[in-house]
Amino acid sequence: MRMIKWENGAVFTPDQTRLPLEEVTLKLTTVEQMAEAIKSLQIRGAPLLGAAAAFGLALGAYNSKAQSVSELLADLDAVGVTIKEQRPTAVNLFWATDRVLNMAHAYGGFSVDELRAAVLVEAQRIADEDAAQNYAIGKYGAEIIDDGDTILTHCNAGELATVEYGTALGVIRSAWAQGKKIKVIADETRPLLQGARLTVFELQRDGIPVTLITDNMAGYAMSKGLIDKVIVGADRIVQDAVFNKIGTYSVAILAHEHNIPFYVAAPKSTFDLTRKATDVTIEERKPDEVTHIGCQQTAPNNINVMNPAFDATPLKYVAGIITETGIYTQEHFQKFNPTFPL
Amino acid sequence: MRMIKWENGAVFTPDQTRLPLEEVTLKLTTVEQMAEAIKSLQIRGAPLLGAAAAFGLALGAYNSKAQSVSELLADLDAVGVTIKEQRPTAVNLFWATDRVLNMAHAYGGFSVDELRAAVLVEAQRIADEDAAQNYAIGKYGAEIIDDGDTILTHCNAGELATVEYGTALGVIRSAWAQGKKIKVIADETRPLLQGARLTVFELQRDGIPVTLITDNMAGYAMSKGLIDKVIVGADRIVQDAVFNKIGTYSVAILAHEHNIPFYVAAPKSTFDLTRKATDVTIEERKPDEVTHIGCQQTAPNNINVMNPAFDATPLKYVAGIITETGIYTQEHFQKFNPTFPL
Repeated sequence: MRMIKWENGAVFTPDQTRLPLEEVTLKLTTVEQMAEAIKSLQIRGAPLLGAAAAFGLALGAYNSKAQSVSELLADLDAVGVTIKEQRPTAVNLFWATDRVLNMAHAYGGFSVDELRAAVLVEAQRIADEDAAQNYAIGKYGAEIIDDGDTILTHCNAGELATVEYGTALGVIRSAWAQGKKIKVIADETRPLLQGARLTVFELQRDGIPVTLITDNMAGYAMSKGLIDKVIVGADRIVQDAVFNKIGTYSVAILAHEHNIPFYVAAPKSTFDLTRKATDVTIEERKPDEVTHIGCQQTAPNNINVMNPAFDATPLKYVAGIITETGIYTQEHFQKFNPTFPL
Repeated sequence: MRMIKWENGAVFTPDQTRLPLEEVTLKLTTVEQMAEAIKSLQIRGAPLLGAAAAFGLALGAYNSKAQSVSELLADLDAVGVTIKEQRPTAVNLFWATDRVLNMAHAYGGFSVDELRAAVLVEAQRIADEDAAQNYAIGKYGAEIIDDGDTILTHCNAGELATVEYGTALGVIRSAWAQGKKIKVIADETRPLLQGARLTVFELQRDGIPVTLITDNMAGYAMSKGLIDKVIVGADRIVQDAVFNKIGTYSVAILAHEHNIPFYVAAPKSTFDLTRKATDVTIEERKPDEVTHIGCQQTAPNNINVMNPAFDATPLKYVAGIITETGIYTQEHFQKFNPTFPL
């Protein structure tokens, strides 16, 4: 199912903050609406954020009053700045924005309307490529899944995090489609509960057996021999670490201690091998995400809170990174640097 | 502050399910009310459960229509069965019930009214001893706390888990009272949020600096060098493991991986050295604790859930167990067996 679509000058996508209790489709017609949807996590998931950024530029192009190509390019550059400001960690936001802007600047010889169309075509291409990449990730990833496996996943690296099919959940869907009788254990993933709300919702809808746990039960489940493999997504992969939803690092250490293979499933657009873990800013989100759950306040007023949205898992804990062209393993990790041929 | 008191035939204790947003005192006048309060976690925390069990027997004694000592003993035995059924893992419930019943059976020569009074006196003694033990635990535990330490704790092993002062938080209070400038990081402790609701509440009230995190942020905080020590309570300590709130095991592994000392603070009544980890039943609680947070539903309807209330942390991960007579360390753990002199 397509998670993001362009129709008649508007972008349509599910409001992920309302799931699973309400299925509401957002209609976004301005850059400001797209920026707010990204900021508020109505749209989330690294690959989907890439497509959203690109469609945000398309909204900017179609709403622009520019009379010349140079005016439109200036408007697009401003849109790009706005979009990149919304989330600092997910590299796909930067990658997709830069890809569209580079294309636009390179196509500067066209008319204003042609350039508008070219921006939209590029956004659509990014979306289509992401969908195709996820099916490819699923195909490669299914090879490491054995019949009867129980797989732990953290956060939501599913269809709802991508344009279609999902990365970590794409691997699970692909193995399931091959007839492997697998089960999934989903961490609820505090503070924003993407596991409870989104991963469980998707898998239940597809008929794939899923059991929900709180994040702090993962170690217990591993100690009881209930987990065969861990598969998660990624928001950014640097030379020495995988950035993903807060808590991923803890899961990786627990898997390591229990000799359970820990895999990452992500498209190559997630790689950022010019950087190391220490070069990446981790987004610190608002305290009320920790002190509240939905409408329910869970802690006293006026307290100190830490709320990093992501953490960095050193590659030493990673058995493999499943991409659209195959699986990278420890022997490749040793060579990760800006010149590594992805 | 006393967390449980007997006055005029009734037991008074805070309703811990309403904290921190409402401070409500329960008045319990029957065994059924006490049993329900234990089952529903209105009263929780291993040491406090011991005192609650004993006061539950006192309620049973005072409400009994027994005309003879043997009738009263039979009634008390029945009350003991009811109380023990409420929570299967916390050993203090069994320990305190058995202590009062053994006393009652041994004192069989008294009159019915004298036996009623003796049960109450024994319950009061258990409560007083717990309070004194916690101050002693605090005194020994403060020795391992350095000025400037930041201490991670999980769940609530505070005043609210005990009759007075707390075990893990007793250690923190004691170090703070000595003038050591310490800070606390509190895991929120899903599913029932005892960290967010109770630990943060207690420490904020006492002016001890505390920062709230979700459970899956502990590894991140350790990786950033933000945590010097971990101190938790215990629900049962067996020959080879510490049973405590679900998630404790994960915290212990994370501490181990980061070379951070992991301490347990608990009275000797928590020890059960006749058993090993595999001999202990872990309470599985209702699914809706995981699928809801307060009134807020967080997951789809009709899903599978795992909800163990406790986990077992092997002693190899434990730097020391702080008790009312001193600190047990690895050299003692090697000798833990039914004849170990506590």
